Amino acid sequence: MLKRLIPQEHAFFDLFKEAADRAVEAAQVLLKMTQNPNELDPLARELHALEHACDDLAHHGIERLNKTFITPLDREDIHELILKIDDVVDLMHAAANRMVCFRAGPPPTHAVNLAKQIVRGCEKLASAVHGLRSTKNYDAVMRDCIAVHEVENAGDDLLHAALAELFEDSKDPLYVIKWKDIYETLERVTDSCEDVANVIQGVIVKMS
Amino acid sequence: MLKRLIPQEHAFFDLFKEAADRAVEAAQVLLKMTQNPNELDPLARELHALEHACDDLAHHGIERLNKTFITPLDREDIHELILKIDDVVDLMHAAANRMVCFRAGPPPTHAVNLAKQIVRGCEKLASAVHGLRSTKNYDAVMRDCIAVHEVENAGDDLLHAALAELFEDSKDPLYVIKWKDIYETLERVTDSCEDVANVIQGVIVKMS
Amino acid sequence: MLKRLIPQEHAFFDLFKEAADRAVEAAQVLLKMTQNPNELDPLARELHALEHACDDLAHHGIERLNKTFITPLDREDIHELILKIDDVVDLMHAAANRMVCFRAGPPPTHAVNLAKQIVRGCEKLASAVHGLRSTKNYDAVMRDCIAVHEVENAGDDLLHAALAELFEDSKDPLYVIKWKDIYETLERVTDSCEDVANVIQGVIVKMS
Repeated sequence: MLKRLIPQEHAFFDLFKEAADRAVEAAQVLLKMTQNPNELDPLARELHALEHACDDLAHHGIERLNKTFITPLDREDIHELILKIDDVVDLMHAAANRMVCFRAGPPPTHAVNLAKQIVRGCEKLASAVHGLRSTKNYDAVMRDCIAVHEVENAGDDLLHAALAELFEDSKDPLYVIKWKDIYETLERVTDSCEDVANVIQGVIVKMS
Repeated sequence: MLKRLIPQEHAFFDLFKEAADRAVEAAQVLLKMTQNPNELDPLARELHALEHACDDLAHHGIERLNKTFITPLDREDIHELILKIDDVVDLMHAAANRMVCFRAGPPPTHAVNLAKQIVRGCEKLASAVHGLRSTKNYDAVMRDCIAVHEVENAGDDLLHAALAELFEDSKDPLYVIKWKDIYETLERVTDSCEDVANVIQGVIVKMS
Repeated sequence: MLKRLIPQEHAFFDLFKEAADRAVEAAQVLLKMTQNPNELDPLARELHALEHACDDLAHHGIERLNKTFITPLDREDIHELILKIDDVVDLMHAAANRMVCFRAGPPPTHAVNLAKQIVRGCEKLASAVHGLRSTKNYDAVMRDCIAVHEVENAGDDLLHAALAELFEDSKDPLYVIKWKDIYETLERVTDSCEDVANVIQGVIVKMS
């Protein structure tokens, strides 16, 4: 009996880790998109495939949850964590799609910097999610979560700087509409990273 | 005693069903708005009345929850379900209001198609919510929820196609601002349908 | 032992109260910003300081939660309440930042009226949060929460009136983009007040 349970425990943490690792990859592709505007289409297809893979992970995770009697964390928290990691990747996908369908021209530096924060946020989430396996990592996990909050704050500041510059530099309303939307979608990715960090902190809060 | 409890169990499921049925009706009115731009005002008033009815249902649902000792699902889940169904109708109301106050001209095909997905999403939610009454329906409820996720994906794709077309076809920034906003609000309705599906799946995850 | 616990109980309610009081102050500053467009910069700095103070409160609240064995409310609810109050202040901060970085000119009356609703919403939240200390206040707390829902409805109506006027009066797309965004951010503050009210009502629903 115990043998049957232990692998299942691992399975959920493996699933979180795999989803978070996909999120890191997606963030790296998104960063490349901001740095290589001539490669938008193939990179967006790459990101689409990662988003699809995450959807499948979420789907299988919820199915597994329905078949598992004893879970390593509260069932609701596992469900929430699966959903919120999926949201991060969905929003990166949305940002990539906007970049492709807007044909908005070469990304300004602020877009690159926002994407860098997203990479950092996803890396910290992957580290936090990995640490969740054992309560002895909880201090480190908390530090990762705090780093994600910093990423969200940095995202906020970058967005406001980007918008100020956009309105100052451009008099073309269509250009403004496009980049304002892309910047805001990128910033929402950092918000969604914070949502994952909040779920993780909530898990630790419950356990302690 | 038991007699007093059974009707209350039914009462909550009746309330979910009624709210979800109002959501389906609201979605049908929203679809008509995209198909009959000359009828915007009377249809928007119809949708407003449905939104008001849903608000009342939510309000009475929460009051009832405060007076009921034994509930058929976890109290938090009932509360969450009431709120999230209400959000769907609120967002349809917001979309309708935007269409009225923007006076944005005849809706492009993409708006009609988004509204059709919303109808489908609400129908699947009504079916899922109806099925919640008995655990023996849970497989069917799960299939309904998966259909809602597909609706959300379709909403995403439609939004991106709509935005690409919008920026390609129109050079009028005010027209672009208006339809971009309406499209995005319609797509957020499909997101909110997915939020309801997630709560329902969370309930099943807990019960299983 | 009991002595050690009682102050901790108070500590969480004190923390909620302090955060909600900061939110009221922030709302008053935001209102001033809509009334004194020449004072935007110093007022935005004031609001920034309040947002920072709330961040610290949230951070310390979560740390305390991790060190407290017995909590006056469910740990998850305390966590959620801390986060959602923080969201209200974050969104006010975002609205203030937009006003500063857009340099959008004197705020129209609708912006002032939206800010007035935000002040009212925050005051009702502060009252609700204060009442949570004792179950004998729960009826009054419920009334406060209902008042917050009314604020959210009023915010919705004001937003739609503001948008209708904006598109009717202005033919300058950049002006429209700026004020549309500011109005929407202000309206999202009223949404976030409603989110706090929903958490509070959820707590009461559980307790009753």
